Amino acid sequence: MNTIENQNTIFPLGERTPAEYFTGKAYLKLLVEQDETGSYRVANVVFEPGSRTNWHTHAAGQILLITQGKGYYQEKGKAARLLTKGDTVIIPSQVEHWHGAAHDSSFTHIAITNNSTQGSVQWLTAVTDDEYYSCQENHGF
Amino acid sequence: MNTIENQNTIFPLGERTPAEYFTGKAYLKLLVEQDETGSYRVANVVFEPGSRTNWHTHAAGQILLITQGKGYYQEKGKAARLLTKGDTVIIPSQVEHWHGAAHDSSFTHIAITNNSTQGSVQWLTAVTDDEYYSCQENHGF
Repeated sequence: MNTIENQNTIFPLGERTPAEYFTGKAYLKLLVEQDETGSYRVANVVFEPGSRTNWHTHAAGQILLITQGKGYYQEKGKAARLLTKGDTVIIPSQVEHWHGAAHDSSFTHIAITNNSTQGSVQWLTAVTDDEYYSCQENHGF
Repeated sequence: MNTIENQNTIFPLGERTPAEYFTGKAYLKLLVEQDETGSYRVANVVFEPGSRTNWHTHAAGQILLITQGKGYYQEKGKAARLLTKGDTVIIPSQVEHWHGAAHDSSFTHIAITNNSTQGSVQWLTAVTDDEYYSCQENHGF
């Protein structure tokens, strides 16, 4: 299985993400706290197999650059998108969504999160196992 | 030797960069043309061993995230900084600098380039072989 231990690490693993906003274990390393213009910050996020964010929104959007493993991005009411290295996701402002690893693979992405006076992220409910596994059935699981 | 052919590729190689602004062969793949707020764009840049940008400035700054190989970042009048995977560079606005591969390794970075009404980049003169090799002597070449 493609696990955190055998992934091809580029950036340090960082710290566990807050348990109240994630299912399973994920790790975040802040790479750039603030860019020259104060518009965004950059982090690296590593998900263990099966782990994922809660549903959430970004007031000013976010970009994901996938560097390792297999995972999913799903906007509320839409089919989940399968993600592997080299994929990019432009997450629109205020769209409810989640992202995370597949059940059988770790998953790593860089996240560029745009700042907003409303806060950069609003956390919502957990992605249930039903929601999580039904999205993967559509991708042949 | 660590070459483009045996690098661990994440993003597609893209197109040759303009010869008038680079020494040697480098390749750029635009990953995100414009973020949700219109503040920046994201690209992946791969340098063959020995290749580098001209000296240049960014009106609103740029961020580099190094994903592979060995390279350098140098601001005018300062010592060059050796870069390997996992390193990040926050390039300040209007500071003259160059970046590129070491003579014996390919080099890959993601570049987040901030937009500006003055244009995002101003190209200057080529980095001469003297400038290029003297910076590497300081790092044990």
